[in-house]
Amino acid sequence: MEVKEMLFMNKGDGENSYVKTSGYTQKVAAVTQPVVYRAAQSLFTGRNSCSYQVLNVADLGCSSGPNTFTVMSTVIESTRDKCSELNWQMPEIQFYLNDLVGNDFNTLFKGLSVIQDKYKNVSCFAMGAPGSFHGRLFPQNSMHLIHSSYGVQWLSKVPKMTSEGGLSPPNKGKIYISKTSPPAVWKAYLSQFQEDFLSFLRCRSPELVPDGRMVLIIHGRKSADPTTRESCYTWEVLADAISYQVSQGLIDEEKLNSFNVPYYIPSQEEVRDLVNKEGSFLTEFVDTIEVELEGIWTEPENRAKNLRSFTEPMISHQFGEEVMDKLYDKVKDILVEDCKQEKQSTRGVSIVLELKKKESHLS
Amino acid sequence: MEVKEMLFMNKGDGENSYVKTSGYTQKVAAVTQPVVYRAAQSLFTGRNSCSYQVLNVADLGCSSGPNTFTVMSTVIESTRDKCSELNWQMPEIQFYLNDLVGNDFNTLFKGLSVIQDKYKNVSCFAMGAPGSFHGRLFPQNSMHLIHSSYGVQWLSKVPKMTSEGGLSPPNKGKIYISKTSPPAVWKAYLSQFQEDFLSFLRCRSPELVPDGRMVLIIHGRKSADPTTRESCYTWEVLADAISYQVSQGLIDEEKLNSFNVPYYIPSQEEVRDLVNKEGSFLTEFVDTIEVELEGIWTEPENRAKNLRSFTEPMISHQFGEEVMDKLYDKVKDILVEDCKQEKQSTRGVSIVLELKKKESHLS
Repeated sequence: MEVKEMLFMNKGDGENSYVKTSGYTQKVAAVTQPVVYRAAQSLFTGRNSCSYQVLNVADLGCSSGPNTFTVMSTVIESTRDKCSELNWQMPEIQFYLNDLVGNDFNTLFKGLSVIQDKYKNVSCFAMGAPGSFHGRLFPQNSMHLIHSSYGVQWLSKVPKMTSEGGLSPPNKGKIYISKTSPPAVWKAYLSQFQEDFLSFLRCRSPELVPDGRMVLIIHGRKSADPTTRESCYTWEVLADAISYQVSQGLIDEEKLNSFNVPYYIPSQEEVRDLVNKEGSFLTEFVDTIEVELEGIWTEPENRAKNLRSFTEPMISHQFGEEVMDKLYDKVKDILVEDCKQEKQSTRGVSIVLELKKKESHLS
Repeated sequence: MEVKEMLFMNKGDGENSYVKTSGYTQKVAAVTQPVVYRAAQSLFTGRNSCSYQVLNVADLGCSSGPNTFTVMSTVIESTRDKCSELNWQMPEIQFYLNDLVGNDFNTLFKGLSVIQDKYKNVSCFAMGAPGSFHGRLFPQNSMHLIHSSYGVQWLSKVPKMTSEGGLSPPNKGKIYISKTSPPAVWKAYLSQFQEDFLSFLRCRSPELVPDGRMVLIIHGRKSADPTTRESCYTWEVLADAISYQVSQGLIDEEKLNSFNVPYYIPSQEEVRDLVNKEGSFLTEFVDTIEVELEGIWTEPENRAKNLRSFTEPMISHQFGEEVMDKLYDKVKDILVEDCKQEKQSTRGVSIVLELKKKESHLS
């Protein structure tokens, strides 16, 4: 089974659903909205009296709500404000909400009434666009603004890694880059991220109109070292919880040793290098921001629920549905213990990037 | 609750799902594909050496498959054949698959791999467009071809009818126009259809580019009389089955008497009159076709399953989920009995309409 077939957020709107537990990405969305607001308005600069008839906007990795509704609101209000300032007619806005085929689009579509009720006088349309953003999603020259938050750190596949000497598993007992991982593990992860992010940019480039904008918010890290607590904490906790199930005989050790997550947490420098290498975008803005987790998951139980909402489909695919409740109970126990000892990570790091499609790009 | 919130086909791909039981509309689709094929090709006539970069195509009331995949295949093959004939480059094709928010888009999207696998060398994109076609769905001037099969006979609401004298229920014991219905019932149905179909055309007109095409396949009737077996059979059987549950004390009589289906089966003349009245379309082609039901539902049980798949969400909303199995068992019994006595309707009638958007329309 390919990554794109097992990777989605927990469905519906129940206790462990992504819709109900996405407090962190909601806070990130709130913090990054000014960048989206400004990017939408910049579409109007450099144009003379000619307004847009239609503005096409995509949100990649939209999940089933509610963050994508925040982005829609920002784009609508930004456009309305700018048109009011310029005394131009408000364009119609067409939103394309993208996620993998396994995403719960039924729940997403039901949530859209929030936007319809809020902006009754705005002509806006919302489409679901199923598919992987590692490939082409839209026709050439069709998008004015593309947004993606906490999407592009997901890789198209688990990095291929081999152990030195071939004797022990390359990333024994871990599921992501860790302090105990050999250098080959980081190398494999970075290499897969480079391949995927370059292909992501190459797919988006023809889809955007000249001067079109792209706002990317990526789970990132501040330090050059990829093994600090700041970036690895979630995956360390999950690996420890899986190891515990192995020790209890509930999970086969081989299953743990052969599993790694298709996820890479890059630094700002790694991201910028790839934008420059691809060559069809100008970087209008880049920043690395920190969001305090305080106040989002005051109870470790809630942090455990969030972690479950975005990892369970992938984890249960590897280790089996029957062990999920026990596994995430252990995750909760570890988080509670770390919280007492103040060993938790307390900040989330995001790279915020605003790119502008160059007028013409000779590749 | 509005019609648009309770009207959808049975979800998933189980025994009573629309996906598994839609044999009749599949046969209609097969018969009407030449019209779709020709309409797609006609988009290329009158154009000089300039090809399309992107062709935007919508299917309204697409349900969750598989008929919409047949339409997609026809459009792709028609375009490919025409471009090959003209020695033009094949455009990218963007499909917008529309249905009400309650439709099972998750199942629809999973089915799209059929198209992706079949046309690997064609650049085509599929979007889900949730919403009611009784309102605007797409930006102005954005669609080249709009298709809808067995959609527009669904009304936006149940016709308002009052009984003469106000003493007895206006359509006692029935759920659609019937031989025993007073004239006010037909009048109310026709009036609601006129309102809805006019508004449907008025919504589509700005969405289509000049010379854009629309192919509508509508459940219709041949006779001027709207109460013949040919057009009313399904709703008569369902009303009889509900009446039986009333006689058994399982359904409250008042619930039956206050219920009518939001569905009208028009004649070709009624449809043409409305196209002319609205005024922004030229009729390129119109026909009334009959499809033999023989060979589709050789077993009355299968006909009962199909009937259940497209009526259950609406019927269970009115009469309660708990009585559904018994109700549709009775439907099956009636169909079996009618089959023995050769009292079934044996043909389905469809109105096939190809419209062309006029170059400019001063309303």
